[in-house]
Amino acid sequence: MIDLTLIPDGGLAWLDASGPLAHVVLSTRIRLARNLAGVPFTVRAREGERRHVLDAVDDAWQRSAAGKGGARFLLDQLEPGDRQLLHERHLISKELAGAVVERGSGGSGAAVFLAGSVGAMVNEEDHLRLQSIQSGFALPQAYAALERLDAELGALLPFAFHHEFGYLTACPTNAGTGLRASVLIHLPGLVLTKEISKVLQGLTQVGLTFRGLYGEGSEVVGNFFQLSNQTTLGKSEDELLDHLGKIVRQVVAYEEQARQVLLRDAPTIIEDKVWRAYGLLRYARSFSFDEAMNLLSGVRLGVGLKLIPGLSVYTLNKLLIFTQPAHLAALAARASNDPEVRAARATYVRRLLDEEAAPA
Amino acid sequence: MIDLTLIPDGGLAWLDASGPLAHVVLSTRIRLARNLAGVPFTVRAREGERRHVLDAVDDAWQRSAAGKGGARFLLDQLEPGDRQLLHERHLISKELAGAVVERGSGGSGAAVFLAGSVGAMVNEEDHLRLQSIQSGFALPQAYAALERLDAELGALLPFAFHHEFGYLTACPTNAGTGLRASVLIHLPGLVLTKEISKVLQGLTQVGLTFRGLYGEGSEVVGNFFQLSNQTTLGKSEDELLDHLGKIVRQVVAYEEQARQVLLRDAPTIIEDKVWRAYGLLRYARSFSFDEAMNLLSGVRLGVGLKLIPGLSVYTLNKLLIFTQPAHLAALAARASNDPEVRAARATYVRRLLDEEAAPA
Repeated sequence: MIDLTLIPDGGLAWLDASGPLAHVVLSTRIRLARNLAGVPFTVRAREGERRHVLDAVDDAWQRSAAGKGGARFLLDQLEPGDRQLLHERHLISKELAGAVVERGSGGSGAAVFLAGSVGAMVNEEDHLRLQSIQSGFALPQAYAALERLDAELGALLPFAFHHEFGYLTACPTNAGTGLRASVLIHLPGLVLTKEISKVLQGLTQVGLTFRGLYGEGSEVVGNFFQLSNQTTLGKSEDELLDHLGKIVRQVVAYEEQARQVLLRDAPTIIEDKVWRAYGLLRYARSFSFDEAMNLLSGVRLGVGLKLIPGLSVYTLNKLLIFTQPAHLAALAARASNDPEVRAARATYVRRLLDEEAAPA
Repeated sequence: MIDLTLIPDGGLAWLDASGPLAHVVLSTRIRLARNLAGVPFTVRAREGERRHVLDAVDDAWQRSAAGKGGARFLLDQLEPGDRQLLHERHLISKELAGAVVERGSGGSGAAVFLAGSVGAMVNEEDHLRLQSIQSGFALPQAYAALERLDAELGALLPFAFHHEFGYLTACPTNAGTGLRASVLIHLPGLVLTKEISKVLQGLTQVGLTFRGLYGEGSEVVGNFFQLSNQTTLGKSEDELLDHLGKIVRQVVAYEEQARQVLLRDAPTIIEDKVWRAYGLLRYARSFSFDEAMNLLSGVRLGVGLKLIPGLSVYTLNKLLIFTQPAHLAALAARASNDPEVRAARATYVRRLLDEEAAPA
C-alpha cells in the first residue's frame, strides 16, 4: 500500500479550515497546464517520448525548491486502490488515476510529484499540470506558491509557448495561460432557498463554470460545488484570478444572505434539519457516500449558523475525505466491497463525532 | 385544568412495563358492558334518566372497594383538552370524550370513575362500561380485578340480564358477556418481514379483530396493534379469555421468530434502523405524532433485541403517552397548535432520552 506519510502533511494541509471564509469555501485550487516543446502531446506520444517527459520533469523537480522535501509516485507502480486514494485526496485527477498501461509493457510515464500544497502531474492530458491547493478562499496564496514552482521549472524545461496564443496545450480550451482556478464551495443556503439555479446560470453568463466534488462530469452531492474559470485565453493570469475572486465573493455573500433568510423565516425547520443530520451521523450504522455527504452538508450548515456548538469545521473536512471508499478501505486494510464499506463509513463517522461530542 | 393526581398512579400504573412479556405486549385491557334494567339505553335516554343512571352508579361505586380511593370526573365539567387527556391516557373512550352536551343544558350524565387499574365509564354507549387495565400480557389479573368490581356493583345495581342472551347491551354485538378483552401489542418484526397481513388475516378467521392504538377506526401507527375478541355471545367469559390468550401467545411467538430472522438475515440493516430511530429521537427538533410513534417503534425493537442498551421499556411507554397533543399541551400549560406541539414533542423526547443517555 502507498505510504502517504511520504507526502508532507499527507497532502492534506488544505483540510485544516485555517483559510479565509473556511465556513463556506473549503479550498482553493489552481493548476497550470504546460507542455514540453518538440514533444508530441501525451495522447500522441510514444512510450519513449513519455519516458523522456517524465525524466526531464523529474530532473527539474529535483532541482526546484519543492523537490527538496517532496514525494514522487509512478502511477503504473500503484495499486488501483492507491491511485483512487490519491484522487480522493484531490492530489491527482481522475484522468491521471486512470492513465496507466499494463505492467511490464514499459509504462505510461504517468506520475505525480507532491510537496505539501504544490504538486505536478506528469503525462496527464498535458505533459505537465502544476497545481496548488490551499485552505479556504485563498486565490493569491495559491497562485503565489504555484507561480514560484512554474518559474523554477520553466527555467529548466522548454515549455511550449507561442507569442500569440501563449502556452500551448493538448486541448485548445486550456491554451493561453493554461490556468484553471477553482474553489470548492458549500452552498446549502442557496439550495434550500431554491436560488441556486439562478446563481449557477449567472455564473455561466460571466464566464465561470461549476462542477461537483470530483471535477468534470461528477455529480453535485452534499451541496458542494466547484466553481472555476471557463476560459484561459485572452486574459492575463491576474485578470482571470481577479474575475473569479470577485464572483466567488459575491456567491459567498448570496449564500450568507440565504442562510440568514432561512434562520429568520424557518428557524425551527432549519434547526430540526441540522440536528436530524447530526443525530443520524452520530448513530446510524451504515451510510452510502452520497447520504453521508448530504448529512455532513446539514451538519456543516448547523456549525456555520452556530446552531451546533463544539464541532470543528476541520472535523467535517476530515469526514469529507476519509469517508470515501479508498480511504475507508485503506483504514481497514482490506478491499472495498459495498456493505462493508458502508458499515465502515458509519463506524468512522461515529468515532470522529464521539471524540468531539457536541451537547444535544 | 384537570387534577390527574386525584387518580391513584395517575391511572398510569399499566405503563410501568412490569407485566409478563412487556417487551412485546404493552398492556391488557378488559371491559364489561352493563346497563340498568328498566332504563332506556343512553342514546335513547332523557336527561333525567341519564342523571338517574349516574346517581345510581355513583352510589354503588362509593360503596364498592374501588370507590374508597378513587376519583370521579363529570365529562360535562371538563375542558375539551382535559377530556382528550383522559382519552390519551386510555382511561376513557373516544365516544365518552365526545359525549358531552352544551354547558347549562343539564348535562349528558357522562362520567368516569377511576381507581388505579379499574374504572367505570357512565352513560357511554352503554350505561356502564367497567374496565381494567394491566401492564403486559395479563388477562387473568385484569379479569380478576374487573370481576370483583362487577360483582360488587352488580349486587347493588339491577343490571339488565336475559336468561338466554345474557347481559343486554345497546349494540347487539356486545350482548352476552358484554366482555371485550384487548391487548396492545408491538409487532415490528412481523411488519418488517412482511408477514403481518397473513397474521392479521388469520386473526379474523379465529374470531379476533385488530385495531390501531386508539380503538375502533384508528389507524395503525408505530406497528402498535390492539388485538381483541370479536364476539361476546355464546361463550363464557373464561372461554373468551382463554381463546384470546392462546392466540396472543401464538402471535407473540411469531413476532419473536420474526425478530430472530431479522437479526440472523439482516443484522446490519436492523442495527442501522434502530440506531437511526434513536439518533433522530435524540436530536431532532420537531416531530409529528405519527413520526414519533414510528421512531419509538424502531427504538423499542432495538431495546427488545438488546441492540440498544441502557434504555428502559418504561421510558418508551411514557413517551408513547406523554408525546400526545393533550399531554404536551398540559405539560406546557398552553393550547395545542401544530408547530408548537411538534417542537414541544421533540423537546420532551430529548429530555427523557437524555436522562437515560445510552452509549453510542
